[in-house]
Amino acid sequence: MGKNRLEAFSDGVLAIIITIMVLEMKVPHGETLDVLMPLLPVFLCYVLSFVYVGIYWNNHHHMLHTLRQASGAILWANLHLLFWLSLFPFATGWMGENHFAPLPTALYGVVLLMAAVAYLILQRFIIAAEGERSALRQAVGRDWKGKASLFAYVAGIGASLLWPWLSQTLYVLVALLWMIPDRRIERVIQHREP
Amino acid sequence: MGKNRLEAFSDGVLAIIITIMVLEMKVPHGETLDVLMPLLPVFLCYVLSFVYVGIYWNNHHHMLHTLRQASGAILWANLHLLFWLSLFPFATGWMGENHFAPLPTALYGVVLLMAAVAYLILQRFIIAAEGERSALRQAVGRDWKGKASLFAYVAGIGASLLWPWLSQTLYVLVALLWMIPDRRIERVIQHREP
Amino acid sequence: MGKNRLEAFSDGVLAIIITIMVLEMKVPHGETLDVLMPLLPVFLCYVLSFVYVGIYWNNHHHMLHTLRQASGAILWANLHLLFWLSLFPFATGWMGENHFAPLPTALYGVVLLMAAVAYLILQRFIIAAEGERSALRQAVGRDWKGKASLFAYVAGIGASLLWPWLSQTLYVLVALLWMIPDRRIERVIQHREP
Amino acid sequence: MGKNRLEAFSDGVLAIIITIMVLEMKVPHGETLDVLMPLLPVFLCYVLSFVYVGIYWNNHHHMLHTLRQASGAILWANLHLLFWLSLFPFATGWMGENHFAPLPTALYGVVLLMAAVAYLILQRFIIAAEGERSALRQAVGRDWKGKASLFAYVAGIGASLLWPWLSQTLYVLVALLWMIPDRRIERVIQHREP
Repeated sequence: MGKNRLEAFSDGVLAIIITIMVLEMKVPHGETLDVLMPLLPVFLCYVLSFVYVGIYWNNHHHMLHTLRQASGAILWANLHLLFWLSLFPFATGWMGENHFAPLPTALYGVVLLMAAVAYLILQRFIIAAEGERSALRQAVGRDWKGKASLFAYVAGIGASLLWPWLSQTLYVLVALLWMIPDRRIERVIQHREP
Repeated sequence: MGKNRLEAFSDGVLAIIITIMVLEMKVPHGETLDVLMPLLPVFLCYVLSFVYVGIYWNNHHHMLHTLRQASGAILWANLHLLFWLSLFPFATGWMGENHFAPLPTALYGVVLLMAAVAYLILQRFIIAAEGERSALRQAVGRDWKGKASLFAYVAGIGASLLWPWLSQTLYVLVALLWMIPDRRIERVIQHREP
Repeated sequence: MGKNRLEAFSDGVLAIIITIMVLEMKVPHGETLDVLMPLLPVFLCYVLSFVYVGIYWNNHHHMLHTLRQASGAILWANLHLLFWLSLFPFATGWMGENHFAPLPTALYGVVLLMAAVAYLILQRFIIAAEGERSALRQAVGRDWKGKASLFAYVAGIGASLLWPWLSQTLYVLVALLWMIPDRRIERVIQHREP
Repeated sequence: MGKNRLEAFSDGVLAIIITIMVLEMKVPHGETLDVLMPLLPVFLCYVLSFVYVGIYWNNHHHMLHTLRQASGAILWANLHLLFWLSLFPFATGWMGENHFAPLPTALYGVVLLMAAVAYLILQRFIIAAEGERSALRQAVGRDWKGKASLFAYVAGIGASLLWPWLSQTLYVLVALLWMIPDRRIERVIQHREP
């Protein structure tokens, strides 16, 4: 299977996830500022999740750029990633509606963690298919960003029940860390296409 | 009509189906574990349906790979398949909300069965268009997986009113059977492109 | 502007319309046949609308097949068509929930009529751009199917307040008329590509 | 990164936004004209927002037409634009449900303004990447339409609390101004491709 339809399907799912998240921000009844203000935490959660899905779309695109052929294992590893990303609207809505309460903050962290693990599994499968000398393998290197993110998510989940604000800070920091697009792959690709 | 737009439209519909299913898992009011636990059966149903839609996307792609030209009959057979798949969110939500009760379990089986029948009809039409010597015809062979699935769905529907757990076990087993991607087509294609 | 992105955007909108219509069939509370039966008219409306959107997708594809370049006027005529099609979920849900009552049946007819008018406008614009000798112009001919549909919709709207069952019969007959794909265009194209 | 996947993802998000807006027009309970009439303002808001998203899709396509390579900065500027556009359904639903009340009218204007600002930022980034002699740079020229729109949005937000009808008039006028597709880019491109 070529990778075109894999990319098209993933783009479709990511586009829908990023857009239906906004449906969790229900239109309030009433026309005053009083009914709008309780939506502020929902809005902030939406911004954070929008950035996260944007990061995944961005990096997903970079990662697949180096792929040539999609095996069955890669297709399922990709669906596994999309599954955890599809839980973003639920986790976002629950954390937002409950104004960053401890348990919803923990669940949001679990979804972030599982999506990150699924991303690493997909990365591993693509490297296995493309070989140790692949552009992706060289680009990823020791992957300190991936490891640091996992660590931050686990720390965030652990802290959430006592200090949920600390968890949220960690989630925001990881997002900022990844908003810088993955120049590693771009660099290696440019070296290879002189 | 070329098959590109047929694939693009099917991908779009499948991407939306797989994503809006998660909307049936309504964000609960309250921030405690008590409000989250009743969602567990809904979540499990979502996982099963996500896998099923993933299987259909996967096999649909393989099946169309061998197609060259889409006639009007194939377009409508494809829409017929998409119709039954579009009922997945409803059937999933009903079975999940009622914690795997008998009648919702039966309806879920009916939707699975009709989607499988629609898939077989589409397969028949493509083979008719491509000829008995087509790659798909050889790949499908005697199609024991397709026949076994139909049998399992019918058995599941029959058992649902007495032993719904048996029906659910059957649905899960069929999903596991198909998660292994359809190597038959891959094998035949590789033989033909030496 | 090439027509590729026009097709991709239209496919996306049509795929979403056809899929979110099913969301109007709300998952009922309760697990018995009693709660499922009231959904039957909603389901029947959904089937009819699914067929209609399928017809539009089908014919839209055929019509654009003959297009080479999309002007601003064609883009807006296309958006105008998508606008009326986007009202299908609303009209379908209202007619279904009220079990084919007179006024919802009339509104459903109005949406069908406006979509058909928008389709004819788009067709006119494409023919104007491609010239009187274009494949589409020859394929459409005197367009009795288009004219008969308009007439049936108007008759259906007129009859709806007195005999809604007559309107629904007309809507179903027009759908059956169009389910036969537009062989006129296929025929002319084949004549031209010998 | 090539621009193809950027276009495909943006098309997907825009197609979903334009379609889920209609979900804010909830199917009413009851089958009489009395239950339909209160939806008229929601419908009018939907028409206005549909036109706006259509304009953005149209101009977005023209703007990307001149792009050759998408950098990380352009990807994020594009996501930033999509973020503000994704708030259209919420702002539309709130203004419609409250029958054009002052505060919802102001919020609608804020979303329009932020989307316009995001569009200008994306335009600036593309011009920076393509160079001062790029087709887009020449096409945009002094960009009086962009500047006039910003001014109208700010005036609309300012007027909304006292004369919301004036704000709505301004929003409609800006939409009419842009419905004429951006011939500037078309003209420059045609000059360059003789």
